[in-house]
Amino acid sequence: MEIGLIGLGRMGANMRDRLRADGHTVVGYDAAPGIGDVDSLAEMVARLPGPRTVWTMVPAGEITRGVIDELAGLLEEGDLLIEGGNSRFDDDDRHAEVLAARGVAYLDCGVSGGVWGRTEGYGLMVGGAESDVARAMPIFDSLRPAGPRENGFVHAGPTGAGHYAKMVHNGIEYGLMQAYAEGYELLAAESRIAAPDKVMTAWQSGTVVRSWLLELLVAALGEDPAFAAITDYVEDSGEGRWTIEEAIDHAVPTPVIAAALFARFSSRQDQSPAMKAVAALRQQFGGHHVHASSED
Amino acid sequence: MEIGLIGLGRMGANMRDRLRADGHTVVGYDAAPGIGDVDSLAEMVARLPGPRTVWTMVPAGEITRGVIDELAGLLEEGDLLIEGGNSRFDDDDRHAEVLAARGVAYLDCGVSGGVWGRTEGYGLMVGGAESDVARAMPIFDSLRPAGPRENGFVHAGPTGAGHYAKMVHNGIEYGLMQAYAEGYELLAAESRIAAPDKVMTAWQSGTVVRSWLLELLVAALGEDPAFAAITDYVEDSGEGRWTIEEAIDHAVPTPVIAAALFARFSSRQDQSPAMKAVAALRQQFGGHHVHASSED
Amino acid sequence: MEIGLIGLGRMGANMRDRLRADGHTVVGYDAAPGIGDVDSLAEMVARLPGPRTVWTMVPAGEITRGVIDELAGLLEEGDLLIEGGNSRFDDDDRHAEVLAARGVAYLDCGVSGGVWGRTEGYGLMVGGAESDVARAMPIFDSLRPAGPRENGFVHAGPTGAGHYAKMVHNGIEYGLMQAYAEGYELLAAESRIAAPDKVMTAWQSGTVVRSWLLELLVAALGEDPAFAAITDYVEDSGEGRWTIEEAIDHAVPTPVIAAALFARFSSRQDQSPAMKAVAALRQQFGGHHVHASSED
Amino acid sequence: MEIGLIGLGRMGANMRDRLRADGHTVVGYDAAPGIGDVDSLAEMVARLPGPRTVWTMVPAGEITRGVIDELAGLLEEGDLLIEGGNSRFDDDDRHAEVLAARGVAYLDCGVSGGVWGRTEGYGLMVGGAESDVARAMPIFDSLRPAGPRENGFVHAGPTGAGHYAKMVHNGIEYGLMQAYAEGYELLAAESRIAAPDKVMTAWQSGTVVRSWLLELLVAALGEDPAFAAITDYVEDSGEGRWTIEEAIDHAVPTPVIAAALFARFSSRQDQSPAMKAVAALRQQFGGHHVHASSED
Repeated sequence: MEIGLIGLGRMGANMRDRLRADGHTVVGYDAAPGIGDVDSLAEMVARLPGPRTVWTMVPAGEITRGVIDELAGLLEEGDLLIEGGNSRFDDDDRHAEVLAARGVAYLDCGVSGGVWGRTEGYGLMVGGAESDVARAMPIFDSLRPAGPRENGFVHAGPTGAGHYAKMVHNGIEYGLMQAYAEGYELLAAESRIAAPDKVMTAWQSGTVVRSWLLELLVAALGEDPAFAAITDYVEDSGEGRWTIEEAIDHAVPTPVIAAALFARFSSRQDQSPAMKAVAALRQQFGGHHVHASSED
Repeated sequence: MEIGLIGLGRMGANMRDRLRADGHTVVGYDAAPGIGDVDSLAEMVARLPGPRTVWTMVPAGEITRGVIDELAGLLEEGDLLIEGGNSRFDDDDRHAEVLAARGVAYLDCGVSGGVWGRTEGYGLMVGGAESDVARAMPIFDSLRPAGPRENGFVHAGPTGAGHYAKMVHNGIEYGLMQAYAEGYELLAAESRIAAPDKVMTAWQSGTVVRSWLLELLVAALGEDPAFAAITDYVEDSGEGRWTIEEAIDHAVPTPVIAAALFARFSSRQDQSPAMKAVAALRQQFGGHHVHASSED
Repeated sequence: MEIGLIGLGRMGANMRDRLRADGHTVVGYDAAPGIGDVDSLAEMVARLPGPRTVWTMVPAGEITRGVIDELAGLLEEGDLLIEGGNSRFDDDDRHAEVLAARGVAYLDCGVSGGVWGRTEGYGLMVGGAESDVARAMPIFDSLRPAGPRENGFVHAGPTGAGHYAKMVHNGIEYGLMQAYAEGYELLAAESRIAAPDKVMTAWQSGTVVRSWLLELLVAALGEDPAFAAITDYVEDSGEGRWTIEEAIDHAVPTPVIAAALFARFSSRQDQSPAMKAVAALRQQFGGHHVHASSED
Repeated sequence: MEIGLIGLGRMGANMRDRLRADGHTVVGYDAAPGIGDVDSLAEMVARLPGPRTVWTMVPAGEITRGVIDELAGLLEEGDLLIEGGNSRFDDDDRHAEVLAARGVAYLDCGVSGGVWGRTEGYGLMVGGAESDVARAMPIFDSLRPAGPRENGFVHAGPTGAGHYAKMVHNGIEYGLMQAYAEGYELLAAESRIAAPDKVMTAWQSGTVVRSWLLELLVAALGEDPAFAAITDYVEDSGEGRWTIEEAIDHAVPTPVIAAALFARFSSRQDQSPAMKAVAALRQQFGGHHVHASSED
């Protein structure tokens, strides 16, 4: 197939390579000059034969909305746009509506796999109409891992279902990472454990906790066995936050995912205003010592 | 009544003052020289008329066990020992047994109120036999706040019940403090809120969240409105930990008290090994930036 | 002062009584016929001398928005609307804008105190312009508890600050209630504790955990000492949810408030899909017994 | 090698099969008559050539302690006992001491893999002396999965290190399971998601959350796509509890593992006393409706 790919960052560039390696013709565009095959969205659209298929892979929110609005003015009836970035699933409703007004079909596609996707394939979760999914299947089949289609690809439901599934995937990921991380700290805290990294290495085979994330953690420990070179500062992307917001909206208790999110918030605080308040309170009722800020 | 009081630290000294102010004769002893009325436990026992009442108010654990063992060798049949420190409630079983072998009665008494107890009275939770409680009631009545006895004193049950009740009291206290502290941080984080301290001041009357702890927090904010002078380092005493251990033992879900305890653990970590592991993991799968430890 | 009061439910009717008892003239309106002093908003507006003060006290969201839109068409330049319901604080921006277009001033006022406010006074948190707050002060002074104004009333900041403060107040309230509740369950789980209600009764004076909520819990235990007559089904209002959403927006860790919210979600589930999944997983790897749904 | 194996339940019987398949001579014993190769521990010991190797695989706690005490009286200097059950790691100190008094060596071995271990191999975590580990290596090599030894086996440290590592492994497992379970419930709660089981099926390849536990969850969903046949009742074994106790002892924040444990506690409660207390409190201050227990 021929496909226009907008956004050639870490994810987009790898996806382009994987698609080309599988025989597709990719017309790549990036807002940064000199990276893409064309210099503008208009040029990209002009280079593609109709009915066109274009894939957006740019930062979620403002930028994705801007790109889709511009594309709505360039694409034609019968074209198909697949939004593969990390859009919030309710943004998909808006995107679909904007494009439908021009007769352009829309699919949302959650893409998992990170930097490993280029070689191993990407996990794909798609929302939209069955016929549009069928039409883009050659692309999905090239992006997903080898093996049975249903193990790396799902048509999750109507518009938004793909990004909703991806959002939940990422929420789970937060919980999984935090669980391993707490376990790592427990190993590191106990003097009987000679080498936490060796214990985690041994968990890769035969145990209940074996997983791809564990393999990555073992790889990281292999590079820096006690994480001496890095700090505990952890960013969070939107999807962990949205997961909790959806949990609240659906009244679903998600204590583990929320705890994982809050741990990241805490990791980025130099001083916690809340814990200052607790320290101050303890001093008030019990005369307990507080640490003066100059003691730091 | 006449009573021997062992341990004249912040709590013990205040209690001695309150008891004397109410007409009791207190023979105080402290391991630190020059603080007490006598120089040894033996001298204290000798000064008290039988059947004696003695009250221990020393650090929980090793020290309390040592003092009680020594007293077991000095006290006589018919004497009564009241352990008012922060003993773990199952230590009370041991204490009672050691003393019972000598014919000495035992009460455990959880004491709440901190530095304010001297003037306002202490909340008291007592475990042991009814007749022993009755015998020590003049002491309890002097220590507890004015007002109906049942609002500041309870005979909670047999041996250990007093310290169990105090342990739960402290567990609740952890949760309450953390709830206010999270609220404080939310106020401080929002630009619309001109002065978080003024909002909390206004909560002292009429609101659902009014409490003594809130008054203390307002007092603390009055001294240092943005907690600029202190750090977020928060100690925890044994009782918060024991509360979670008992929750586990009884299979009682205590997410709030546990979260409050863990927040204190986190507050004392300069770098979190767990969050380093999460940062390292994110880098592995997503190529996400980590903060080098030299960047700190 | 003269004031129009819209919404005469549990809160509104009590506030009307308190205002009248303090000498104000209240023109009350309720959508339910026969409750108010007038039969329509138009009639209420016609009855009030200009510049008018009206207070909305109706369910947050759709209904409040509808009432304010209707009032925007009835009120005149120089009038003042005070929204005292539980509006989300960012709704206040919208309300203020709608009214400003007509020259009508707007204050948002968070009101705490529940059914006790009529006699004890309400805690008030107000957002808006200083001059508008000054103008309505006679009303605020009558609604708030006796005592120093700053202990029961705060001008928290510009538009939205009042409802933001109230939202945080309610988030804290969730945490406080859950902390006491976990403590109650720990007392009830331990056989040494003869009567959990008596222990909590004794905490009302002298202890660190004394509070108004504790008094209410003791009152509830007085009516039904083991909560035998009620179930564990607990509703949540919007404000607990919004608190977590704001915590996420501000990247403030709020593990205690979130845990309290999730506990309410769980309390309303007959069967937890998540825990079914855990049960199924345990069976898969360990051959552990699951409870068939017919065993219930 | 020749080895005595005590305990032929689900785990022990499978391990015997795997060892025999790999050429070892196993003398099995079980307290239940007719299952083992011998009728008593004494007979088992008599059948084994010295220096003997015996492996205990019986329920942790009382039973394991009893068996080891009995074996201490039967084994001889130079023999080796490997405790492969789920002993608490500090029990290992006691076991080692009891046996050392008789000149019998001791290894503790955490065994993971559940019912799948017989065919796939078991993850093994061992504590004890290097020379004892070396001596038993043929057994460990047969039990662990094929592939590099260090990926399925670790000599984690001195006595207790094996069971400590296994305890942490299980704590992590709690967190992982709960993360997937929360994600499952979020998928099931959203109407856009046509089939949660299909989404999870698609996560098995290419995604960040792929793991063995996910495969098991997909298998479970394959048997019962909406878990209609089972209830949400989830047991917990000792190891999740011990993990939190150790976290407390080491002051390691473990919010995710604790939340997972508490979710299990909650799943087993028909009515939550804590949430009854919250419901009662809401009624007290707000006049909110409670559900009468007869309404259930």
